[in-house]
Formats: sequence, C-alpha cells, structure tokens
Amino acid sequence: MERYQAILAYDGTSFAGFQAQPGFRTVEGELRSALTNLGWPGRTLLSGGRTDAGVHAEGQVAAFDLEWRHPAEQLQRALNALLPKDVSCTSLRVAAADFHPRYNALRRCYRYRLLPALWPDPLRERYALRVWPAPDADRMAEAARAIPGKRDFRAFGSAPREGSHTVRTVFRAEWTRQDDCLDFWIEADAFLFRMVRTIVGTLLQVGNQRRSVEEFRALFRTPPQGRSAPPAPAHGLCLMRIEYPAGGG
Amino acid sequence: MERYQAILAYDGTSFAGFQAQPGFRTVEGELRSALTNLGWPGRTLLSGGRTDAGVHAEGQVAAFDLEWRHPAEQLQRALNALLPKDVSCTSLRVAAADFHPRYNALRRCYRYRLLPALWPDPLRERYALRVWPAPDADRMAEAARAIPGKRDFRAFGSAPREGSHTVRTVFRAEWTRQDDCLDFWIEADAFLFRMVRTIVGTLLQVGNQRRSVEEFRALFRTPPQGRSAPPAPAHGLCLMRIEYPAGGG
Repeated sequence: MERYQAILAYDGTSFAGFQAQPGFRTVEGELRSALTNLGWPGRTLLSGGRTDAGVHAEGQVAAFDLEWRHPAEQLQRALNALLPKDVSCTSLRVAAADFHPRYNALRRCYRYRLLPALWPDPLRERYALRVWPAPDADRMAEAARAIPGKRDFRAFGSAPREGSHTVRTVFRAEWTRQDDCLDFWIEADAFLFRMVRTIVGTLLQVGNQRRSVEEFRALFRTPPQGRSAPPAPAHGLCLMRIEYPAGGG
Repeated sequence: MERYQAILAYDGTSFAGFQAQPGFRTVEGELRSALTNLGWPGRTLLSGGRTDAGVHAEGQVAAFDLEWRHPAEQLQRALNALLPKDVSCTSLRVAAADFHPRYNALRRCYRYRLLPALWPDPLRERYALRVWPAPDADRMAEAARAIPGKRDFRAFGSAPREGSHTVRTVFRAEWTRQDDCLDFWIEADAFLFRMVRTIVGTLLQVGNQRRSVEEFRALFRTPPQGRSAPPAPAHGLCLMRIEYPAGGG
C-alpha cells in the first residue's frame, strides 16, 4: 500500500464543488468512483482545499492510499481513462506515507479572470467574469498593493472553524493582463472561506468608482472599517497550484 | 424594413452546426427563434458560411431583414437577451439592402488550435485538439508555406456544388504559438467543404513524421499525387472573421 499524490485539473462548470455530497455531482465523487474501479478500498481521500461549486482548477492536489503493482504512470493512465471529460489527473506520483495535501501545503495560488467586454462572449465566459464598463485597472492595482503581508482578513471571509483565527499571510496579490483579460493573482499560506472571491468583488467596486482605495485599505484595520462587497461569481476563479516543501509531497 | 448585418460568436460544442435542421439544435435555429420573438417575419436569413457540428465562431456573419423602429444597439441588446448562453451577437448594424454575407465576402479567416500535451486538459480541450507526442512545429511550418496562392485544392475538400471548380486563393497559411498552444491560421477567398480541417489533419501527419513535406506539396500538383489525411476533429476549429469591401457590408 502506497500513498499517492495526484494533481487534478477540472472545469468546475458542471460540478457542485470539490467535496463529495450525496445526490450532487462533485469532483471528489468522480475521483472516488474512478479509484474504486481500480481496487481502491475506499478509505482516506485527502485534498489540498475544497473549491466551491463552479470554481475551476488547474492544480488541485489529492492524496489516497492504494495497492498498485505497476508504475505510477500506468495508474495515471487508468485513472484518466475512468475520469469524465471535465476532470483530469495531470500528474501522479508516490508520496511520503504521511503526506497530507492540506496540512503540508506552504502556499496556494489562485487566479481570478475578468473579461472587460460590452457583449457576451460565449468562447471566454466559461472561465472569466465579463464586466462592463471596464473597471479602472490602475485603481484596482493600487488597492491590491494593500493586500500582501501577514494580516487579519476577517473582513474578507469566515474562519474554517468557530474560534479559529482569521490571520493569513499573502505573498502575492496583483493584476496582470492576458490578451483582453484582466487576471488577479493571489498566493497565500491559506485562505478563509470565499476570501478570494470576496477580495475580487471588493476590488471590482474600487475599479468601478464605487469605493475608494482608502476605503479598501480600511478593511484591514483592527477592527475593520466598513464592509466588503459580495463575493464575485465562482466561474472566474481557478485554483492554479498548491506548493509543498521540497521533497515534502 | 432594413437589412441588418450581425456578427455572431458561438461555442459550437452543443450545436449540430450552423445551418438549421429540423430536430437538431443549431445556431441558425436559435437565431431564428430569437428573431421571431422580435417580430421578424421569418423570411431571409443569410450567413457567411455554414460551420459544421462542433466548430466554434468568433466572427460568423448573418443578415436578415427586420422592421425595427429603435437604434440598432437596442436590437442587439434584445437579441442577446433572447439568445442562449452559447451564442452571442457581438456587433449589429444596418447594412445595404442587397448585402449578402456569403456572396459579398472577400475573405474568411479560420484558426485551428492544437494543444500539445500528454494528459487531458479539461480547461482547454473544449477549444483545442490535444495532440501527443508534440508534432514537429518546424516541419508543419515548412509544409504550410506551400499553401498560399491561387491553387487547386481538390485534394483537400469537395466543391460546394457538383461541377463547380476547386480552385481557391489562400492569402495566409501559417502557424503561430499562443501560450502552450499551436495555432494554424488560414485566410482565403473561400473554402471547400472541410478544407481547413483536412489541411490540418494532413499537416499533422507531416508534423508526426508520417508524411514528408515533399509529399504534402505533391497534393497541389495537377492532378494531385497522393491523398490527404482525414479531417482533424471539429472542436479545434474556429471561424475568426469574414471580411467585406469597405462600405460593402
């Protein structure tokens, strides 16, 4: 029996999120059913984070224990043959027996994609939030510079468990341009529930002149001054990668 | 009553092609039903070209006659509110009364996108053909240089009507890179049935060492020496734009 680390990519459009829920189509549910077909005894299935309904991933990480007598590449091939078209395993290898994709993670990287466009764009709106009028990218960039560092993010999300703290360390928060899209990149040690989408929703209000950069910064005071905006829709968000200590995955 | 020119973008995945066919979901069918809701009497609906099932478009062109007493932008807004999520009208304006999107077209531009990748990629395979091993891009580029010009393309497609000729003028045929994708761009005055996909299928054989550049060139002799490959799958293809004489649309 070995512990495997799998990197998963998925199109979140048709999933009720990552985590298995009876009666719903989930990424974990599809992975469990593919693994069961490969002789998996149905015990531990760990993940690096639970993405919400509609959120995409290029680099979700899962771990499971399996008795497999062939090379890992054959297992990856078998898994991909069993997984539906909207999920794939892009990397698979043997990990340390105690590897835990959530607890061992050093940082997570998300991208939120905006498409500034007046008219619907069926070829891009599956993976981007269309916004019009175009938000002011310079204002959003300026506001984003307030984010990196070790800060209390309580204005932007709720803690995973009652009583746990809301301090997180953000290593990177910036906007880039990709063709006609505006991408918000954020990397942190961990995130609160809906934190990325709430930050993006609030930055969009800054970009749309509905909130000043100063008001955005005030959300990081203790206690926060003011309230965040509602979270931006799920389909613009993608979990890009999760990083582990060298040799630690 | 005025003639309108509409530019349409669509995700071809869930369509049985552009052209209306009873019992199938088509782009034209959706457009007809949206227009009917706007008082369209159901007569002429012209298009710049009939894309096959699964082929996408960023710049399909349609024309129709409608009595509409408000600005064209309001019509475009109403149309987009009625069209399903996978089709949109990205431009709409009054055209000359005799504007015909097919007969007036000077050139059409298509893009065929390849994604060289070993493992499935759910976030990109909707709009790209995944290929592995990666084809030799230099060989495909060299072969593509044989395409531009006024040539007999009979090896690559069938004529639209029995007895019509198979000579077409290609203005551009080249490969470019976009992130990790390889894009084939082709512009011509007009195309034979499945010509782009057949050219791409044959270029892929050149890229995979299954056919030499010389053998590719021999398909342009009169009569052609050899046979083309089967057409590449529909989902990598996108009709990018159709060009008209200035003021002629």
